[in-house]
Amino acid sequence: MAAHDDPMTSTLDSLPDILLLGPGPSATHPDVYRALARPTLGHLDPVFIGLMDEVRELIQSLAHTQNRLTLPISGTGSAGMEASFVNFIEPGDRVLVLQNGVFGTRMKDVAGRLGAVVDSVDAEWGTPIDPEAVRAKLATDSYDLVGVVHAETSTGVWNPVEAIGNLVRPTGALFLVDSVTGLGGIPVELDRWGADIFYSGTQKCLGCPPGLAPFSASDRAVAKLQRRKSKVPNWYLDLSMIVNYWDGAKRAYHHTAPINMIYGLYAALQIILREGEASVFARHRAAHEQLVRGLDRLGLELLVAPECRLPMLNAVKVPEGVDEAGVRVVLLREHGIEIGAGLGPLAGKIWRIGLMGHNARPEVVERCLAALGQCLGKA
Amino acid sequence: MAAHDDPMTSTLDSLPDILLLGPGPSATHPDVYRALARPTLGHLDPVFIGLMDEVRELIQSLAHTQNRLTLPISGTGSAGMEASFVNFIEPGDRVLVLQNGVFGTRMKDVAGRLGAVVDSVDAEWGTPIDPEAVRAKLATDSYDLVGVVHAETSTGVWNPVEAIGNLVRPTGALFLVDSVTGLGGIPVELDRWGADIFYSGTQKCLGCPPGLAPFSASDRAVAKLQRRKSKVPNWYLDLSMIVNYWDGAKRAYHHTAPINMIYGLYAALQIILREGEASVFARHRAAHEQLVRGLDRLGLELLVAPECRLPMLNAVKVPEGVDEAGVRVVLLREHGIEIGAGLGPLAGKIWRIGLMGHNARPEVVERCLAALGQCLGKA
Repeated sequence: MAAHDDPMTSTLDSLPDILLLGPGPSATHPDVYRALARPTLGHLDPVFIGLMDEVRELIQSLAHTQNRLTLPISGTGSAGMEASFVNFIEPGDRVLVLQNGVFGTRMKDVAGRLGAVVDSVDAEWGTPIDPEAVRAKLATDSYDLVGVVHAETSTGVWNPVEAIGNLVRPTGALFLVDSVTGLGGIPVELDRWGADIFYSGTQKCLGCPPGLAPFSASDRAVAKLQRRKSKVPNWYLDLSMIVNYWDGAKRAYHHTAPINMIYGLYAALQIILREGEASVFARHRAAHEQLVRGLDRLGLELLVAPECRLPMLNAVKVPEGVDEAGVRVVLLREHGIEIGAGLGPLAGKIWRIGLMGHNARPEVVERCLAALGQCLGKA
Repeated sequence: MAAHDDPMTSTLDSLPDILLLGPGPSATHPDVYRALARPTLGHLDPVFIGLMDEVRELIQSLAHTQNRLTLPISGTGSAGMEASFVNFIEPGDRVLVLQNGVFGTRMKDVAGRLGAVVDSVDAEWGTPIDPEAVRAKLATDSYDLVGVVHAETSTGVWNPVEAIGNLVRPTGALFLVDSVTGLGGIPVELDRWGADIFYSGTQKCLGCPPGLAPFSASDRAVAKLQRRKSKVPNWYLDLSMIVNYWDGAKRAYHHTAPINMIYGLYAALQIILREGEASVFARHRAAHEQLVRGLDRLGLELLVAPECRLPMLNAVKVPEGVDEAGVRVVLLREHGIEIGAGLGPLAGKIWRIGLMGHNARPEVVERCLAALGQCLGKA
């Protein structure tokens, strides 16, 4: 029976308030909720256009880039990935994906569908990409684009993007960095890394609901876009048109911007930059360390070696004999806490505990550890 | 200077409250604002999955369809258009677009980028598609897909989709209907029309901010999707994967759903179905008639003939000697009212006045007419 049959009930009135400690979405910051509910403006209203300019500056600040082509893509992080390939490669282009988790695998799928010739450097899930393997690959083949995931949400691995960027730059390939889970939790330094294409998502460390993908492209990438022999085979994500809405004196309508979601992103970015990046990153680091200490007391181990662990996404090995899914169900139903399952080869073998954005706080870690301890009979 | 330099200011705190009477976004309903700010849940939370099922039922109800593949696409109305072509045509497919405005023209662009052989039946902007011209075209050529815009937002024309559907059905072509601006303001009867593919947008008569595209596809369309020789060349919008998240016993993660926007859509659909479609459509009709009477008193004429005028989008001819853009600026700055400009060949020649969703009310029309009269010196 559809809810509208009963004028007195709505599922929205009785939503549970869940502590979101999975791989994302994470907690929406209270000020972001307020932002979402601010009055909708027209997408060509001068006040909204001013806010768009501010959003660009805020993304530029947090991602440490001067890239003029910096804006939120009107879709989730995966739309950012789609935009990154569909605009900057053409059929027959050679793409190298550095793959050690779900999102590297997804990159290969996205690029392949667009007619790229896709090659990869693979590392075991749970281990980082080895720059030496990248160096060896780049010495034998040439590529138009090299893509890597900064923060592999599926495993909790922090890939060495700066070292990889240093290897890619001399080859002339465009360097693509996915930092859906990294932005707002660990440093993102696009210009220093020589990253040409970058996307993120709102629902991880930014503390905003899912729906937008902060995006940036270098002048080199824009030049490649302008040199295309064929139109971008995706009208909705065609940055050569979208840029005429986000930049320049005359703002040409392309598609209607997701106004209120952009309010949310704007608030989320302001919250982070007002707290200060150093403080935000230290808070994520401290929450992670507190979690690791607590897990250790519970006899639980992490999948990833300490030197390449992400602070905001912790892959915890499920002990022998423990019901992986059962623990998650009890955490959700009895403790109001959501944690994530493993994906692909790690399904059933790990839990993923996210401490992202507003949830990277001592009291949150404490509550998580206490509940997990109870579930494991170690309270 | 970015706003975050000053911790005490935020553009969001001082947003003007504008009466949105353009082509969309329209007024967000107060209950939809509240919905947007409800607690974010995980995209695999059982409560959220239950809400997804309700959203499907609500779209099915309002669009009058039994189509199982009914869901909101994670992007604006234009993403709905993109999804409609990229999933259901393959390179070399023959597509007929019935074009009499911006959105028919856009369909041709979208389909062409995907390798379709695109043909069209054109009507002058401001006039409807003539079913006889469609009949003649279909008698001489065969097509894999025929697309039409139900409610042409760029001109205010209501196209005769039912008559067109009756002509398309016997040919075996898939029948695609864009009702971005129609849904929630005039009847949408997908199953009766024999529509195979349908998309809408949240920011018109649904009274929800932009960001989602309610979408539906018939079993015939799904069968075509399943018969594809090649993967859908768009990972983000690949419905053959997305359906595994929106339907079935096991909900497989594809991309993270825009949780809070889906809350907004859910509330918006409930508001309409609780008021009742008949009442909602009558309210749009009455507001339109009130506007037309008032415009007549001001000596203003509509572009579109009475028999094919949309109630929610009124294209008003700019009188000789009147500064088209100047009037819009004064309306916005001095009266807090946004109306829209003409596009393409109608730029500078018409204003577009939207009376959509929550704005289709007598007091809104009154305020609009009073302000417009003042601007024209006829108060």
